[in-house]
Amino acid sequence: MNHADQFDTYRKRVEQGLDALTPLAGARPARLHAAMRYSLEAGGKRLRPVLVLATADLIGAGADALPVDKADPLAAAVALECIHTYSLIHDDLPCMDNDDLRRGRPTAHKQFDEATALLAGDALLTHAFALLAENYSGPLAHALIRELADAAGSRRLIGGQMEDLLAEKKSDATADELEFIHLNKTAAMIEAALVMGGLIGGANEENLATLRRAGRHLGLAFQIVDDILDATADTKSLGKTAGKDAKAGKTTFVKLHGLERSKRFVDEHGEKALGALQSLPGTARFLAAMIESMGSRSR
Amino acid sequence: MNHADQFDTYRKRVEQGLDALTPLAGARPARLHAAMRYSLEAGGKRLRPVLVLATADLIGAGADALPVDKADPLAAAVALECIHTYSLIHDDLPCMDNDDLRRGRPTAHKQFDEATALLAGDALLTHAFALLAENYSGPLAHALIRELADAAGSRRLIGGQMEDLLAEKKSDATADELEFIHLNKTAAMIEAALVMGGLIGGANEENLATLRRAGRHLGLAFQIVDDILDATADTKSLGKTAGKDAKAGKTTFVKLHGLERSKRFVDEHGEKALGALQSLPGTARFLAAMIESMGSRSR
Repeated sequence: MNHADQFDTYRKRVEQGLDALTPLAGARPARLHAAMRYSLEAGGKRLRPVLVLATADLIGAGADALPVDKADPLAAAVALECIHTYSLIHDDLPCMDNDDLRRGRPTAHKQFDEATALLAGDALLTHAFALLAENYSGPLAHALIRELADAAGSRRLIGGQMEDLLAEKKSDATADELEFIHLNKTAAMIEAALVMGGLIGGANEENLATLRRAGRHLGLAFQIVDDILDATADTKSLGKTAGKDAKAGKTTFVKLHGLERSKRFVDEHGEKALGALQSLPGTARFLAAMIESMGSRSR
Repeated sequence: MNHADQFDTYRKRVEQGLDALTPLAGARPARLHAAMRYSLEAGGKRLRPVLVLATADLIGAGADALPVDKADPLAAAVALECIHTYSLIHDDLPCMDNDDLRRGRPTAHKQFDEATALLAGDALLTHAFALLAENYSGPLAHALIRELADAAGSRRLIGGQMEDLLAEKKSDATADELEFIHLNKTAAMIEAALVMGGLIGGANEENLATLRRAGRHLGLAFQIVDDILDATADTKSLGKTAGKDAKAGKTTFVKLHGLERSKRFVDEHGEKALGALQSLPGTARFLAAMIESMGSRSR
């Protein structure tokens, strides 16, 4: 199977998981559950959950995998997408980025209202932990929950959003501040995707550290591409408002380092991610192809 | 030790735990961590965490307690207070109750700004799960996390807030809607406090079910007292805006059932909670006194 077909197969499994592992839209209170599903079902690349599934496959097939009862990575993949979706819902709120459009559709607070969007975000965040606690057991459940709580916490995902917000208010954010934002707002959850997939696949400590390193570089490459796209693509192909960073006078990677150097950074981080993955026991063909296609993505 | 002194001893332990188990205000990003601490340190009754400590003591001292290595209930107590505090921060936001005053001080979004308050709430919610994952192990950690994720989730705490919000928009909420709100917005976390304390104390299944029942009645009594106080107390003694339910035309227990009947409901739920606690092996003197003083609380 080629890379695009494999991605599609993973993505379909994620979509099925999102449907099966989220409260029904009619469950009381219906408005809350409808809002949770509205945002979860908005599509998107499903990058993080696909990474969980692909990494679990990669590690689980490797000779060095610990002899664990193989657990299904799907619930962990859905948990990560719940966290990602909650962070987008809250990020789009008027008091944050005040965005009307997400993945080509009205944002949650536009479709419902601000209070419902706020609560739907809170509920998706809480649901992520419920999914891990309900679908895994023993030391694996514990390790997954610790990883997610750390990656999504005040020092990482939320910390990155806080500094991103502060950076928006000034046009002279430093390279250090920008790195903190990228490392935490974006790379933390991509790292978590690889580590959680690795935990489920039975990776040993050394391989988990390698996955974490690969995830960090992949996450940084991904975020720089995002900055490049915001500066160069149009709203229609992006599915969200384009050019808003520049309009807001926000310091982005492109603004700080220029377009050419930004592209070079994407290549460098991609190569480092690739190098890490190739040192793992299994054959990281799918993940390698994913990284190689990163530089040419359009949304 | 009399009840008030014992409560004070528990409360002080909670305050110390809140300080010791929350990221320092200077940790990066400082503004986020300062906002988390600002709201956590605002005082309040600390009812939920005190209930965790008292229940763990009650069950742990009982002859029927399972022979577990006794874990310290403090981190679980702090986790519950983190959830309670996040729900208050989000509840006070302009798109929700739009409240300027909480525990006699400016609400988080007044002291900082809306975005910071939103993120501080998200961070406290996530921190609660981190605390449980980091401070407990094995089946106990798993059971605590499942309990918290359920009690704080879309069908309970957040579901209760959603229906509360919808009820505010109409003056004719039904008794059924009001019961759903009380059971979930308030009683869920008080139930969770007793159950989590019981889990840490080593309660067996039967005693956990009894604790859950006691918690539900205690929670319902507590919320009805809240409605009574909103209708009868003044803002100064309450530490939050009084009379806002009536002003908003909101259906409360008092509006639906009248003041006298509401007081009778408080007594009835208190008696049921007491009956459940007295069927447990230990001596529930502290919790019994707490329930008995419930009807006469002033804030």
